[in-house]
Amino acid sequence: MNQNPDIPVKAENQPFIESVPVDLPAPSLNDNTADLDRLARSLEHLGFSPVRIAPGRMDEVVRKIRQEGLSFRTVLGYAGAHWEVLDVVGSSSDAGVFGFAVDLGSTTLVIRLIDIFRRKTINETTVNNPQVKWGADILSRIVFARNRESLLVLRTCLIEACSNTMRKMLEDSGVPACRVYGVSCAGNTTMSHFFWGIDPSNICREPYIPAANTFPIACAAELGFDFLPASLLYLFPNVGSYVGGDILAGVIAVDLDRSSQARLFVDVGTNAEVVLGNREWLLACAGAAGPALEGGVVERGMQAASGAIDRVRIDRKTLEPDLRVIGGVKAAGICGSGLIDLVAEMFSSKILTMEGKFNTDLDCPRFRTTPDGRAYALALSSQTVDGQEILVSEIDIGVFLKSKAAMYAILTVICRKVGLGFADLEDFYIAGSFGNHIDPEMAVRIGMIPDLPLDKYHGIGNSSLLGASMLLCDRSLLAEAERVRNMITYVELNVNVELMSEFRGALFIPHTDPRLFPSVQLL
Amino acid sequence: MNQNPDIPVKAENQPFIESVPVDLPAPSLNDNTADLDRLARSLEHLGFSPVRIAPGRMDEVVRKIRQEGLSFRTVLGYAGAHWEVLDVVGSSSDAGVFGFAVDLGSTTLVIRLIDIFRRKTINETTVNNPQVKWGADILSRIVFARNRESLLVLRTCLIEACSNTMRKMLEDSGVPACRVYGVSCAGNTTMSHFFWGIDPSNICREPYIPAANTFPIACAAELGFDFLPASLLYLFPNVGSYVGGDILAGVIAVDLDRSSQARLFVDVGTNAEVVLGNREWLLACAGAAGPALEGGVVERGMQAASGAIDRVRIDRKTLEPDLRVIGGVKAAGICGSGLIDLVAEMFSSKILTMEGKFNTDLDCPRFRTTPDGRAYALALSSQTVDGQEILVSEIDIGVFLKSKAAMYAILTVICRKVGLGFADLEDFYIAGSFGNHIDPEMAVRIGMIPDLPLDKYHGIGNSSLLGASMLLCDRSLLAEAERVRNMITYVELNVNVELMSEFRGALFIPHTDPRLFPSVQLL
Repeated sequence: MNQNPDIPVKAENQPFIESVPVDLPAPSLNDNTADLDRLARSLEHLGFSPVRIAPGRMDEVVRKIRQEGLSFRTVLGYAGAHWEVLDVVGSSSDAGVFGFAVDLGSTTLVIRLIDIFRRKTINETTVNNPQVKWGADILSRIVFARNRESLLVLRTCLIEACSNTMRKMLEDSGVPACRVYGVSCAGNTTMSHFFWGIDPSNICREPYIPAANTFPIACAAELGFDFLPASLLYLFPNVGSYVGGDILAGVIAVDLDRSSQARLFVDVGTNAEVVLGNREWLLACAGAAGPALEGGVVERGMQAASGAIDRVRIDRKTLEPDLRVIGGVKAAGICGSGLIDLVAEMFSSKILTMEGKFNTDLDCPRFRTTPDGRAYALALSSQTVDGQEILVSEIDIGVFLKSKAAMYAILTVICRKVGLGFADLEDFYIAGSFGNHIDPEMAVRIGMIPDLPLDKYHGIGNSSLLGASMLLCDRSLLAEAERVRNMITYVELNVNVELMSEFRGALFIPHTDPRLFPSVQLL
Repeated sequence: MNQNPDIPVKAENQPFIESVPVDLPAPSLNDNTADLDRLARSLEHLGFSPVRIAPGRMDEVVRKIRQEGLSFRTVLGYAGAHWEVLDVVGSSSDAGVFGFAVDLGSTTLVIRLIDIFRRKTINETTVNNPQVKWGADILSRIVFARNRESLLVLRTCLIEACSNTMRKMLEDSGVPACRVYGVSCAGNTTMSHFFWGIDPSNICREPYIPAANTFPIACAAELGFDFLPASLLYLFPNVGSYVGGDILAGVIAVDLDRSSQARLFVDVGTNAEVVLGNREWLLACAGAAGPALEGGVVERGMQAASGAIDRVRIDRKTLEPDLRVIGGVKAAGICGSGLIDLVAEMFSSKILTMEGKFNTDLDCPRFRTTPDGRAYALALSSQTVDGQEILVSEIDIGVFLKSKAAMYAILTVICRKVGLGFADLEDFYIAGSFGNHIDPEMAVRIGMIPDLPLDKYHGIGNSSLLGASMLLCDRSLLAEAERVRNMITYVELNVNVELMSEFRGALFIPHTDPRLFPSVQLL
């Protein structure tokens, strides 16, 4: 993996931050315009109009104007309706202009330090979301945050975790905090509420209306990032309670809204969020398909981290599995992509029936009997970190099949809403760390995703972070985010009858209707 | 004096703060607009567009929207380019909408608590400006504030003094701080810099260019008024280094800019600031005429407070003075208006010559000889608080005459700049506490102000506070302030040769050219 990916934004795009050379006319008895008014007038002549300056920045800017002898560069932040004067630096300054992109995940926070003008990532850090202490699932956090005090507890620990990580990243890279001029964040709707300190309680209450979907561009210091005195902060708007700014950022990152053909974007996290569309229309929905796919429900499931089995192949003759473990260490559990592989290979080896049951007619050396029923010994005790076999039970597989069936049913229903078949899709983007790890061929084989030519599938990793990063280097994405947000029609699936019927058919491997998976028939 | 003056703003004028009834459509699965977006949309339909809400207010507003069951009043502040959502209150709430008007004087701070919709003053308090500790004159404070730390010392004590006074006023009146939605301030240019925390050092350095003349409308909390969470803060802009927002507020309060005939406005404080003009043009200048007129230079001089002699009549025959002392107590000193009376009466009684010298041919029982030369015993030891006679020396009178001469010379020069004679003036406004106390007839007699019909003179008291108060009840004054600011041409008198020549002629009582004061000739 490239540790320092370029931000995929063209050089001709205009960044969120500008550094503008300014030569102020010398003050005289004949022109008694004040320093700041003189600066504003010059900037407005240069096309940056109107300009604004935060009360807390005025003195520093004024002192620097005089210090630099009226010839300097002004650092400006784009705030849509106005330009914010953030700083004044020497005219020959090559100190650089930096920003942070932040993915506010419910489980992890991913932060990138970006050299904005060079469109380069300096470093990237992932930390656990400390809110997990108050609930691993977001629902318990919403319940906890019912009153303002508790909400502030969640908000404060979030801002602190981000701040501490950012400070460390600045230290590691030698970038001074005063050179950070932009923070671009994206998160799901609930995380956005926590981040801004707004009551999220109506998000999970019918009719599921968030308190806020859009957030003003503000000074980072105003939101608690005191160590970033000269920085603007942008938070991607939400589409609705179940389609947040993280999805919007991803949709923009892959230009879903600029294609003439229909494309589909799916982000598998705690929920599965799906956006389908082209440059004329966009449809979104969300459903509970996520946890099992991410390895979160299966007893020995874990995230795709060191010690996770992320690839499984089963010898068709010996029925012995061949495993790959992330980090090359002893196995500790199995992650989502490993689970997909396992089910696909168990099915292809006929260890598993179409209904997801163990084929007990088969003499498989890995079958075990446990108090909880039948299980398959994926890793032997000699292969695991704790010396215990890693068992995947028939029940685990049943849970997993429900998740994959939910995913396939959601995809079917949303496409049918607009009269499209899967074959009409030009591209299929799979976001999330899940998207980086799964093998589309295996996912097709179990009937989780449609039977499309494999080159239509694109694992795009953390697209929320990608969109947030791109915005720092391309300010047109600000208007784009607003445009796409208004373009998206949200389809509520919680009360959808069709979905239930599709779900039942998809519980089989690959499906009750095998004609939907011709490539699997050929295996 | 009326302790609860009405704010002289017509009922049809629109206030700085609005309280707007809003009925939000109920959220439903078919309209998943977020609460705040729903509110913004409703307000924009009602003509309040665009609306903004500070990050720190969002949660409270959101909770109240739901608490009030979607039917409520929104309190909005007018910020020129947008409306700021400040609060949500019950639809039948009669809790009131309050604001503070503040005159940021170098010596005293005057604060009024105002019921905005009723255009009524609730109470008014005057406190000393605590910055006096770092210099009674503003120049030593500017020198002290050279570095950021010292500047913040001056700023902090100013904000604290205002805050403490405001809290006390709220307590006294039973108005809760959360019902204060606007703070409107006016001060001279240096005080405005201190208030905002901006380096004032260039104000007193040629070419006398302030760092800032205009200030954004901000949240009061952002400027340190933490106890006013829902309040906007407006600071009147400055015209230049020597004509500040206090003068601008005064000019607007008396509608100087709306008259077809020329009018003159003079504020006698530490400096004398003069604005002359009509609805087509406005000219301003400032000069050092103030301290002696305010009683600040004469040895026994004092401000117009309890114990000050503020009125003097001298019996033409006995040459005995008849005194009035503020508060009816024993005399402690003499204030500006008392001094004008004294000089006028000494001159009319022929105790004083036209040159301001004691007429020693006269057998005046009040003449004294002191180590510092001749003096006049204004109050006998039996009349004073310390049992010492209050003496006014020939030197004191010389100093005073320099001040009155400076004032008259400034008035002459500014009128001549536009080819006007004093007779062309329709009205002559005298602002400041000085303006409330002086007797125009006496001021004319000594040649301090022109020999005009006395009904043209209007003492208007603290017009800075008046303008700031009116703005809370009439938001059109915001645009008016900006318009008038741009209309005013500042005339620099520091380097004016004509002024020196006029000054010399005006050193006499009433003038070297007695034809300028025909009414004085008739006495």
